[in-house]
Amino acid sequence: MKKKSEPIPNQVILELIQYNEKEFSKYDALPIDELLKRQRAELVNWINLDGLTDGELVNKIGIQFSLHSLLLEDITSEHPPRVEEYDEYLFFSLKMLYRIENNEIDYEQISFVLGRHYLLSFQEKEGDPFDTLRERIRLDMGRVRKKKADYLLYRLIDIIVDNYYVVLDAIGQQIEQIEEQIYNSNTGQEFRKIQRLKKELIFLRKALYPLRDALNKLIKDESGFIDPANERFFSDVYSHVAHLIDSLDTYRDLTSSLMDIYMNTQNTRLNEVMKVLTVISTIFIPLTFIVGVYGMNFQFMPELHWKFSYPVVWAVMLTVTIGMVFYFRYKKWF
Amino acid sequence: MKKKSEPIPNQVILELIQYNEKEFSKYDALPIDELLKRQRAELVNWINLDGLTDGELVNKIGIQFSLHSLLLEDITSEHPPRVEEYDEYLFFSLKMLYRIENNEIDYEQISFVLGRHYLLSFQEKEGDPFDTLRERIRLDMGRVRKKKADYLLYRLIDIIVDNYYVVLDAIGQQIEQIEEQIYNSNTGQEFRKIQRLKKELIFLRKALYPLRDALNKLIKDESGFIDPANERFFSDVYSHVAHLIDSLDTYRDLTSSLMDIYMNTQNTRLNEVMKVLTVISTIFIPLTFIVGVYGMNFQFMPELHWKFSYPVVWAVMLTVTIGMVFYFRYKKWF
Amino acid sequence: MKKKSEPIPNQVILELIQYNEKEFSKYDALPIDELLKRQRAELVNWINLDGLTDGELVNKIGIQFSLHSLLLEDITSEHPPRVEEYDEYLFFSLKMLYRIENNEIDYEQISFVLGRHYLLSFQEKEGDPFDTLRERIRLDMGRVRKKKADYLLYRLIDIIVDNYYVVLDAIGQQIEQIEEQIYNSNTGQEFRKIQRLKKELIFLRKALYPLRDALNKLIKDESGFIDPANERFFSDVYSHVAHLIDSLDTYRDLTSSLMDIYMNTQNTRLNEVMKVLTVISTIFIPLTFIVGVYGMNFQFMPELHWKFSYPVVWAVMLTVTIGMVFYFRYKKWF
Amino acid sequence: MKKKSEPIPNQVILELIQYNEKEFSKYDALPIDELLKRQRAELVNWINLDGLTDGELVNKIGIQFSLHSLLLEDITSEHPPRVEEYDEYLFFSLKMLYRIENNEIDYEQISFVLGRHYLLSFQEKEGDPFDTLRERIRLDMGRVRKKKADYLLYRLIDIIVDNYYVVLDAIGQQIEQIEEQIYNSNTGQEFRKIQRLKKELIFLRKALYPLRDALNKLIKDESGFIDPANERFFSDVYSHVAHLIDSLDTYRDLTSSLMDIYMNTQNTRLNEVMKVLTVISTIFIPLTFIVGVYGMNFQFMPELHWKFSYPVVWAVMLTVTIGMVFYFRYKKWF
Amino acid sequence: MKKKSEPIPNQVILELIQYNEKEFSKYDALPIDELLKRQRAELVNWINLDGLTDGELVNKIGIQFSLHSLLLEDITSEHPPRVEEYDEYLFFSLKMLYRIENNEIDYEQISFVLGRHYLLSFQEKEGDPFDTLRERIRLDMGRVRKKKADYLLYRLIDIIVDNYYVVLDAIGQQIEQIEEQIYNSNTGQEFRKIQRLKKELIFLRKALYPLRDALNKLIKDESGFIDPANERFFSDVYSHVAHLIDSLDTYRDLTSSLMDIYMNTQNTRLNEVMKVLTVISTIFIPLTFIVGVYGMNFQFMPELHWKFSYPVVWAVMLTVTIGMVFYFRYKKWF
Repeated sequence: MKKKSEPIPNQVILELIQYNEKEFSKYDALPIDELLKRQRAELVNWINLDGLTDGELVNKIGIQFSLHSLLLEDITSEHPPRVEEYDEYLFFSLKMLYRIENNEIDYEQISFVLGRHYLLSFQEKEGDPFDTLRERIRLDMGRVRKKKADYLLYRLIDIIVDNYYVVLDAIGQQIEQIEEQIYNSNTGQEFRKIQRLKKELIFLRKALYPLRDALNKLIKDESGFIDPANERFFSDVYSHVAHLIDSLDTYRDLTSSLMDIYMNTQNTRLNEVMKVLTVISTIFIPLTFIVGVYGMNFQFMPELHWKFSYPVVWAVMLTVTIGMVFYFRYKKWF
Repeated sequence: MKKKSEPIPNQVILELIQYNEKEFSKYDALPIDELLKRQRAELVNWINLDGLTDGELVNKIGIQFSLHSLLLEDITSEHPPRVEEYDEYLFFSLKMLYRIENNEIDYEQISFVLGRHYLLSFQEKEGDPFDTLRERIRLDMGRVRKKKADYLLYRLIDIIVDNYYVVLDAIGQQIEQIEEQIYNSNTGQEFRKIQRLKKELIFLRKALYPLRDALNKLIKDESGFIDPANERFFSDVYSHVAHLIDSLDTYRDLTSSLMDIYMNTQNTRLNEVMKVLTVISTIFIPLTFIVGVYGMNFQFMPELHWKFSYPVVWAVMLTVTIGMVFYFRYKKWF
Repeated sequence: MKKKSEPIPNQVILELIQYNEKEFSKYDALPIDELLKRQRAELVNWINLDGLTDGELVNKIGIQFSLHSLLLEDITSEHPPRVEEYDEYLFFSLKMLYRIENNEIDYEQISFVLGRHYLLSFQEKEGDPFDTLRERIRLDMGRVRKKKADYLLYRLIDIIVDNYYVVLDAIGQQIEQIEEQIYNSNTGQEFRKIQRLKKELIFLRKALYPLRDALNKLIKDESGFIDPANERFFSDVYSHVAHLIDSLDTYRDLTSSLMDIYMNTQNTRLNEVMKVLTVISTIFIPLTFIVGVYGMNFQFMPELHWKFSYPVVWAVMLTVTIGMVFYFRYKKWF
Repeated sequence: MKKKSEPIPNQVILELIQYNEKEFSKYDALPIDELLKRQRAELVNWINLDGLTDGELVNKIGIQFSLHSLLLEDITSEHPPRVEEYDEYLFFSLKMLYRIENNEIDYEQISFVLGRHYLLSFQEKEGDPFDTLRERIRLDMGRVRKKKADYLLYRLIDIIVDNYYVVLDAIGQQIEQIEEQIYNSNTGQEFRKIQRLKKELIFLRKALYPLRDALNKLIKDESGFIDPANERFFSDVYSHVAHLIDSLDTYRDLTSSLMDIYMNTQNTRLNEVMKVLTVISTIFIPLTFIVGVYGMNFQFMPELHWKFSYPVVWAVMLTVTIGMVFYFRYKKWF
Repeated sequence: MKKKSEPIPNQVILELIQYNEKEFSKYDALPIDELLKRQRAELVNWINLDGLTDGELVNKIGIQFSLHSLLLEDITSEHPPRVEEYDEYLFFSLKMLYRIENNEIDYEQISFVLGRHYLLSFQEKEGDPFDTLRERIRLDMGRVRKKKADYLLYRLIDIIVDNYYVVLDAIGQQIEQIEEQIYNSNTGQEFRKIQRLKKELIFLRKALYPLRDALNKLIKDESGFIDPANERFFSDVYSHVAHLIDSLDTYRDLTSSLMDIYMNTQNTRLNEVMKVLTVISTIFIPLTFIVGVYGMNFQFMPELHWKFSYPVVWAVMLTVTIGMVFYFRYKKWF
């Protein structure tokens, strides 16, 4: 999991998309005050802010929509996914996983404020996976234009959650790859990979568990920000997140199995090496003793003068060696 | 656990079974529109679809029974067992384990839609374990013909759950076999088998835990799709699944014990080998030293010229050896 | 834990005990139809069946008392302890642990059906621990004759639960014995004993946890099968079972400590052996080098011709040896 | 944890303390029937029995206060801390830890029966930590004389729970001591100490968890045995017990850390020894080979006849040795 | 985690801060009786006591505000964070982490008593992180002067909780540093650091979990001490604490991963050393045998007299050595 990269300070994008069944308009190069004036209560107003470095901008939006000071703090500081119900709006935040490079996960926090006729979204960084949806809204494809801001919120969350599947699938594949590697070549590099996987799973858990709770709270919410007719959609996202958590737990178990497999392979390998080496030593040590015996300089050693001693000693040593090899093989020691 | 094999694309089977206490008919070679026309509200209509590759077919059924778009998505995508209550029907899905080859488990997802007078079942692949039931319905054996579609759903779920017992029993036997093998021959192959078992148990857990929750929700359901008189049957399936989960947990504990046993046997074996080999080295090293002493070329070494030196050295070495062997044996070092 | 032995097929015992405060009668050699006719609603009728192989017998009883088909299935198939409330009767089943041979536990499933004026008990095998109670009923000792069938059920369950104490105490003693053995002689046999213990504890857990839940459900039951005045008795059994589970958990912790102790003792032992052996090698290897030096055949080696070389070499070697021994001892290496 | 020592059979102490704001009297040498007659409903009557071996005595008290047969069984048999509400009285039992010798814990079960105007206490063994309280009652210090029997019960439980703090603090100190010992001298004795600690913590857990539950039940009790004005006192004891459990869990974590530390220190130590020894062998083995070379008896070995061979060989060997030592040091192998 | 240092006995600081929207006054050098007289019900009176050694002082405050005896005991004795509701005031206590030296955490217990128009705070030691807040109150910055004592309590708790973030971030950095160190140089010192981290996390958990529960109780409190309009502020602190606990759990997982990493690195290192050393021995042992052969003194050994024996032996030995090195390399044994 790549550490949240520093927000790029020089690019702040502010965008307003307005629509209902009949109308659609989009503004993205307007100054903030202009833009805020354009919103109309009879349309769905989606105001999206990329980049949270311009504090004044956030404050102006805050004043316009009379956002609570604690809520503004929540938008700009990192915290676990959360839903907060206020009198005039609903706050919802979650982590967005949106890029994968060399199996690295990058994430940012996205916050939503859902009012009666508007949806605010605050992103930390430029770039998001919502372009397809923007296009579908513009072209009036699917249901979005017929629905209110709460349905828009559902669509955005759904897109974000779908990206989790991509990430988790990649993790699943990594687990299989690492397992393959361990069984085949166990170079010792796998240990670090497993540790990295474990960390990623820990961070994903931190993103997913509170998200599930937040969604649950959202579904049970009775403040009327979510149209009861749309509750089923949020339930569906909820069950997707539950499924993701399920998979996460499975991957955690598999990763801890990976560690077992790694340790076992390492051990088996070491044991094998040590056994073979020890066996070699064990065979040569008695032989060295035998030749040592006949290296003694005693004057009276009858064997020394016997003509066939030398070949006989070789024969004996060969016998000993073969005997030991057979014995070790029989005992399955190497 | 074998990965869900690719759905076979060329074979889609659509089948309608209609019955009440007096009538029975079965259609399986009709085009979809024909078939849908034949259903009659006074009968139980069981429409079974094998193979989900023909998207148009699924859509036509969806339109006919006005299935919700989220539900259609659920039918065709993989997800944990789940029950969803809609106004006009009840959705229930679970995993079907239906074939075992070399202790491999194959599974597919089966989805049910239970309406007032019909039951739809969607299978991913051809072939199912329901033929006996179809025959019993045709021949009017047992209670099925006297009951409504909800009882049919119970019977189908019951058959699927019964198959889980077969699979779990096979796993129980495997655990015992592997334990036997470890104690008797520990070839190192057992490690992978244990790992495979662990994975299968993880996947079974993923299939069973949500199934229990779904059944619980089904029993507590008050929408009227399940006749209260039939609730006891679903309760019975529920307690079967609870029993299966129980066994699963036991098998998990036993499998983790297996790992302990495996590791211990491996260690004991290695230790034994190392100890014996080390003992051999330890005995010969002092002997080699002794013979080394009399291999020195000093001019003035009185022993070299003594007539009985050689046999005495042998005697000393024999004594040392026997002494060490006894000492090691006494210390139970090998 | 001994696998449930095969039910002995040839011996099926059917017995009827009838009593109230004034009357007592017992029939055990009557054919089933005769026996069923004898029951009288004004008495407590306890019908006990040993051996479930005679399916027809079970069926006849089932018809007589109009037992539900699912209940009959439950009686004859194995499942976790369970209570099921029906309109006309209450079903209760649990595991009976009743024999201990060489610390082996044998168990069987016993099922009860409690009606308004009768109690049916179904045992898998001949022989039970209820004879003392039968005698107390006959002789009108204690409260049993003054109470109804629900109190009889309590007494039977109480007797069964008391047997669990015996079994758990035996396990407690085994744990202490094994610990003693490990500390004193650690022969390697203890590993299998610990594994066996662990398995027994797993199976006991499977018997006890659902039993506690079933008793809890029984106490909270409001169907009237249990006289509220007798609830305290069932509560008492409940707290006994809770106590047993408590002990079970303790024993599980102790058993896992046993494994730690075993592994540690094994390791300590191995390490000690290896250390001593390695120390011996380490002492002799430099000595062997020294004598090797003077085994060289160089023409110009002044020491060879010096008169005191030989004793000096011995002195040097002695010094080296003593030095190393002291050093190793000082370092506490053996 | 010392096994509950056998109750001393020959000493049974029965004592009656009566008081209200104005009166106080104490009887402890009276026969049971006398004593029971003396109790007066307008006073708080505290009857304390030390030693449960005199069954007749317990029975007489049981009859006098019409105690339930199950309750009498509970008083004389061991069980986890428990509260039981009866119509006429409240039963409360817990474990009393009251002596520490060489860090050994001795405990006994104490049972209380709280009636409208009396409190019965049953101890297994002579001696208790209540003498200070008895004195405070006699001298009318603090609130006790102004309050009823329920407050007396609180004071007694409070004293018992305070003793747990002493025991847990002692365990905390032991943990620190053992850690110190392991880091400093690791003699291998620490293993058994840690095991003993673990056992004590297991037994304390068995005493404390149910005590917390019992106190909770007591506080929520609505039978009126506890004056609502005194509930805060029992809540205070409850939070003490909760704090104790907290510490217990901490100590459990620390103890399991101790095991890690112990194992690691053992391993580090062993590894160090083995490494040094192996390094010595590794240095001398090549040297032994070199001298072996010049111990060969070939007729044509030019070095043998060269004058400076011997010193050159020594130089070579020295170089090799120093090279290896430096290499090993550089590699940080010893 | 540094053990709570001894309270400094000689410095007890008593301070009264009074304010409302219009007035502000601060007294800190007055004797206790004077000070208590100055409080006025129309203002927020914040009485802060640093140092709990002056028992008389605490008692005087206790009498003035009629604090319950159990509450006074709680103020002066250590216990987990807790909220207690009394009729006239609310008691709240938590741990304050306020200094970090060489990554050491120092903490003290701070207790609050919130009445209708006053807030008492009791600190064990001099020095607190509230000076900025005192200044903001004096200068009438932010909302504090407009709010009541409950908001002041929120601000104080918020400041304390913010300090936890600092501590946890430092721990997070330590974990990364230690991991870096282990991978790069693993000197064996890391083990103790990890153990220290684990202990700190255990103690932080003891501070944070009950704090979350206490805050939850505070929010749900209906006694009216907390103005419903301020509940959101306490909810915000609650979610901060929940976030901290989340991070704590993550750090615990990471720390236990650290142990794995440490053990693995240690093992890998040892294995490497042992393997290289063993390989060296294994290469030289056969060579030593070969030279031993030609050190034998048999009269009839044809090789001894052959002119090229010596170079041939060298060639053979070289071949053996190179062969073995290649074989070991090929087998990846070193």
